[in-house]
Amino acid sequence: MRRTIMMVTAYDGTSYHGWQKQGNTKKTIQGVLEELIKELAGEEVEIHGSGRTDRGVHSWGQVFHFCTTIEMEPENMKTLLNQWLPEDVRILSAHEVENGFHARLSATGKTYSYTIWNAETHNVFQRNYVYQVPERLDIKKMRRAAGFLIGLHDFRSVCSNKDMEKSTVRTLCEIKIEKAGKMIKIWYTGDGFLYNMVRILTGTLIEVGIGKRKPEEMIQILEEGNREKAGFTAPPNGLCLEQVNYK
Amino acid sequence: MRRTIMMVTAYDGTSYHGWQKQGNTKKTIQGVLEELIKELAGEEVEIHGSGRTDRGVHSWGQVFHFCTTIEMEPENMKTLLNQWLPEDVRILSAHEVENGFHARLSATGKTYSYTIWNAETHNVFQRNYVYQVPERLDIKKMRRAAGFLIGLHDFRSVCSNKDMEKSTVRTLCEIKIEKAGKMIKIWYTGDGFLYNMVRILTGTLIEVGIGKRKPEEMIQILEEGNREKAGFTAPPNGLCLEQVNYK
Repeated sequence: MRRTIMMVTAYDGTSYHGWQKQGNTKKTIQGVLEELIKELAGEEVEIHGSGRTDRGVHSWGQVFHFCTTIEMEPENMKTLLNQWLPEDVRILSAHEVENGFHARLSATGKTYSYTIWNAETHNVFQRNYVYQVPERLDIKKMRRAAGFLIGLHDFRSVCSNKDMEKSTVRTLCEIKIEKAGKMIKIWYTGDGFLYNMVRILTGTLIEVGIGKRKPEEMIQILEEGNREKAGFTAPPNGLCLEQVNYK
Repeated sequence: MRRTIMMVTAYDGTSYHGWQKQGNTKKTIQGVLEELIKELAGEEVEIHGSGRTDRGVHSWGQVFHFCTTIEMEPENMKTLLNQWLPEDVRILSAHEVENGFHARLSATGKTYSYTIWNAETHNVFQRNYVYQVPERLDIKKMRRAAGFLIGLHDFRSVCSNKDMEKSTVRTLCEIKIEKAGKMIKIWYTGDGFLYNMVRILTGTLIEVGIGKRKPEEMIQILEEGNREKAGFTAPPNGLCLEQVNYK
């Protein structure tokens, strides 16, 4: 019988060319996982992620599914995979789901985090997981700017894909900015995200934080729909896909 | 004029053979720092750490000093060193101190931390900085056991050096055990630490936490002074020298 298995995976994206398989030439998360699952299942298997993550981007909650005829318990698959996977990828949970479930199409929203190390000296431990900003960031101003982004908007101006033909309207449900010592973490939850949207939003919020922009400029940036008006694209290593939501 | 410079350094010890220079054959923290400082100073320089850290052990607060005749401001030395150092070593601060100051001999105490990832699944992000314990740890019991260690004791039974001829009496001022989600951090502050003392204390506390030992056994372990009676030596990667104290 054909079953659908859903898994949640955590990975340190530092040494991968992103999630998406690229033939057999480059090391990708999808490629590594698919190869192992094929071996485990002894049959052709194609895994489908909730979306791509770029080179250097991390995950605590990427979700993927695949269909298979093998009868092994998902929990046992998880244990076996975790024995074989490289030390920068792990399966956090595995479940059988109803046929028809699709990691991308069934998703109702996602949460991303972006981590900033706000200090003069680079962090030797978290260097692959944070973006260092030496200038002091004004969290209050960043929170005020973030407030203008919440809700249903056309996010065209914070999307890297210039030829985007589909709708660029999305709903941002929440932006939380937390500070613990020199570590600043921005959490974004929404129904969907455009290409590089979190990284461009973060770059723009950082420009507000260092006083290069006013929080109120966010309104105009969204209204004009022009990528040139928004801030820089923050580097990938601070970005982490934290959670994918389903009904 | 000959001046004494003191610096605080943070390092990710993962890819080093510890602090202590070992000829020119192995990559060590002291070796890397000394080479760069010599180049900067244009003269022979020997740096002296507050103590060694083993292979794989980290630091947020290792202190070292050196004597030099160059007249550069310590703050400028720091900036230059941080431009040249590999990305897993940084100078956090630099000061001129009175001649006679010695990073090891002037130290009055140290604080170490040991980090445990208490979860079934290995942590892909912190894998070099934590020790994973899959069995659930009972923090209350560990705190109770730690209580017996506080104060002045002969710590011979938690020292790896069997031929230790000097005194093995030390004062442990504080052991703090913090839990945040699956991350457990044990902080040890004392006037001095024996070889592998923090790692053996941690191994013993973990054995208490998983129920293999009773907290009260700590009393007997200290009294007997027998290394065989204490717990295992926890691996180096969870250990971090957090701070060195001076008068």
